[in-house]
Amino acid sequence: MPIVTVTTDYGTHDHYAGALKGVILGIAPTAQIVDITHDIEPHNVLHGAFVLRYVLECFPAGTIHVVVVDPGVGTVRGVLAGRFAGRYVIAPDNGLITLVYREVAAEAIHVVEEDRFFLPRVSATFHGRDILAPVAGHLANGVDVGSFGRPIKAPKLLSTSLRAENKGKSIAGAVLHVDRFGTLITNIGADDIESLSAGSPKGTCGVFVNGARIGPIRGTFADVAVGEAVAVVGGCDLLEIAVNQGKASERFGPVDRIRIEVR
Amino acid sequence: MPIVTVTTDYGTHDHYAGALKGVILGIAPTAQIVDITHDIEPHNVLHGAFVLRYVLECFPAGTIHVVVVDPGVGTVRGVLAGRFAGRYVIAPDNGLITLVYREVAAEAIHVVEEDRFFLPRVSATFHGRDILAPVAGHLANGVDVGSFGRPIKAPKLLSTSLRAENKGKSIAGAVLHVDRFGTLITNIGADDIESLSAGSPKGTCGVFVNGARIGPIRGTFADVAVGEAVAVVGGCDLLEIAVNQGKASERFGPVDRIRIEVR
Amino acid sequence: MPIVTVTTDYGTHDHYAGALKGVILGIAPTAQIVDITHDIEPHNVLHGAFVLRYVLECFPAGTIHVVVVDPGVGTVRGVLAGRFAGRYVIAPDNGLITLVYREVAAEAIHVVEEDRFFLPRVSATFHGRDILAPVAGHLANGVDVGSFGRPIKAPKLLSTSLRAENKGKSIAGAVLHVDRFGTLITNIGADDIESLSAGSPKGTCGVFVNGARIGPIRGTFADVAVGEAVAVVGGCDLLEIAVNQGKASERFGPVDRIRIEVR
Repeated sequence: MPIVTVTTDYGTHDHYAGALKGVILGIAPTAQIVDITHDIEPHNVLHGAFVLRYVLECFPAGTIHVVVVDPGVGTVRGVLAGRFAGRYVIAPDNGLITLVYREVAAEAIHVVEEDRFFLPRVSATFHGRDILAPVAGHLANGVDVGSFGRPIKAPKLLSTSLRAENKGKSIAGAVLHVDRFGTLITNIGADDIESLSAGSPKGTCGVFVNGARIGPIRGTFADVAVGEAVAVVGGCDLLEIAVNQGKASERFGPVDRIRIEVR
Repeated sequence: MPIVTVTTDYGTHDHYAGALKGVILGIAPTAQIVDITHDIEPHNVLHGAFVLRYVLECFPAGTIHVVVVDPGVGTVRGVLAGRFAGRYVIAPDNGLITLVYREVAAEAIHVVEEDRFFLPRVSATFHGRDILAPVAGHLANGVDVGSFGRPIKAPKLLSTSLRAENKGKSIAGAVLHVDRFGTLITNIGADDIESLSAGSPKGTCGVFVNGARIGPIRGTFADVAVGEAVAVVGGCDLLEIAVNQGKASERFGPVDRIRIEVR
Repeated sequence: MPIVTVTTDYGTHDHYAGALKGVILGIAPTAQIVDITHDIEPHNVLHGAFVLRYVLECFPAGTIHVVVVDPGVGTVRGVLAGRFAGRYVIAPDNGLITLVYREVAAEAIHVVEEDRFFLPRVSATFHGRDILAPVAGHLANGVDVGSFGRPIKAPKLLSTSLRAENKGKSIAGAVLHVDRFGTLITNIGADDIESLSAGSPKGTCGVFVNGARIGPIRGTFADVAVGEAVAVVGGCDLLEIAVNQGKASERFGPVDRIRIEVR
């Protein structure tokens, strides 16, 4: 039976995440449920989109990822069921799939509208339990993703600038996500850096945070002294700004500009 | 093999929840363990009772729900094993089953006293690991719920008023639970509202929080502007007071009175 | 298929724990993943060592425990794969196995160095996903623990004094861990107390916190009034200092000396 992962902004104070998982298992009792997190910041769709993007392909093909960050629950926004690189995603159509959609091959995206796959009674405020969970359960039971509704060409995407801008001798970027360790994960990809520094050694790049130079791109956090700022290409293949055993988010405060220059 | 869910106030800082889950799997290695939450407020039995009530029936029949919120661990309070609507509950006899007991058909309730089902050594302070977890494991292995001890007629119930009061033209209620989003979940049920407003459209009800009118009962949070208070019947079939994309708990502070009136 | 538990300091804000679990399941799709916690204090190796010690043997033989608390990620510290009392541990070689190593029979300890068991691309900063998780997956698939690398005689151990000192008529100890309930778990074992008080009843021991006497060793928290301090032998078979339904950590502040005396 497939694996079903669950990513929500439900927190762990309430019954919400448990109820959603129960409904999945009620329909697909032998599915393995894996919690990604329930601590997406409430209503922060970009946060959810980031986490989804960087767990999607770690799981084996066939995995079903349910993601619920849904400030518009009960309004007319739709729900999507899609397949990307062999993994399924079920999420509100509110931009949660933005990063996956831009970077991973979409094999199918459908609107979820066939209410025979929902719970018999759909509440106005808990679509995670009443719509997304049962759809995940049926998908786990082998229902085809196309059975849930018509294909959709243009899912909603977050309109904020999520891509770094290559200006020839420099790249201008922004912070995409601040992680638990206070590390700033930027939207500057390893491939952006590669194209910028083609032919030059990595050390010739200078990284600037809010205009202040913090050094070249290093191999790992521990390449600088404890408490020093450091720029590395991290596990997401994105440029990260960290402080060795400290918090870059506290060191730098709000960051609106990340820049890389080749000398 | 059945599903075993775990709900505790153990938090996630320690080994407690992991130890409990390990003992279940040591006895029933193929059970699927599902975390509901370990963030019940320490020693808050009503909080645990609320979460248990609203996950119980989401899971399939046969599921075993282990709930540990146990300010009296080591004292003479008993442990219960019961079956409600085909789902099993194992919990200290301290009121944790109050809401389930009042609203879901009890098919069996037994005191857990047969110590051959416990770990060989029972510590004074960690009954979750030493008593409740092994009993859950044996239940998952097919031991009958009646094997753990004698039936009990009168489990301990929380004595606080958990039911709204229907006064004819109005209902007086209270806040049962404040959720992660700051939404106030009241003890006024959809059925209470139905009987109050029978024959009248929903919009004719006025909802009052601490005496101040916040409007009629709406369909969903987004039916009011962002930042506005709103009353809806939520996913628990209970009246909820929310603030659209905000926190009602911050807007209203401590709430001691919820009232619905038919005009 | 074996059970794989996961203990990290990754928190629940990011994709890290999910990514690690996904990689395990990508290699061993039918393993059961059990979260112990992701809330080890960032970079606190003793915290991780404590939690590992007290979940290790709760799980059945064959369980694989993956533990990631890794301030030195990307540096030359190694990764270990060991077997202790039939359970496997995969962890950075930074002291995480200290308590297990001292107290549980080690049957094998190997350095993890055979990179054919790693992900094809190993990032500099996310060895949990790229090295430890795939090794856990291969172990779950039946690869022998000796296949990952050469045996190691002297794993890194935490050098802080983790053992209480028996001084004949008294024991001098320290706090090993403060739990979620504010209870101080000391390094004074039940066996230490036993040897001290051999022949004398337990009640003849006096327990001192920072030099102030808090009473004899009691049976359980509730043996004193609500709000009173109490010393008990807890579920880890260690002396604990608690406040009944309160927090000893707040009552006592930083504690540098725990002492037990026989009168």
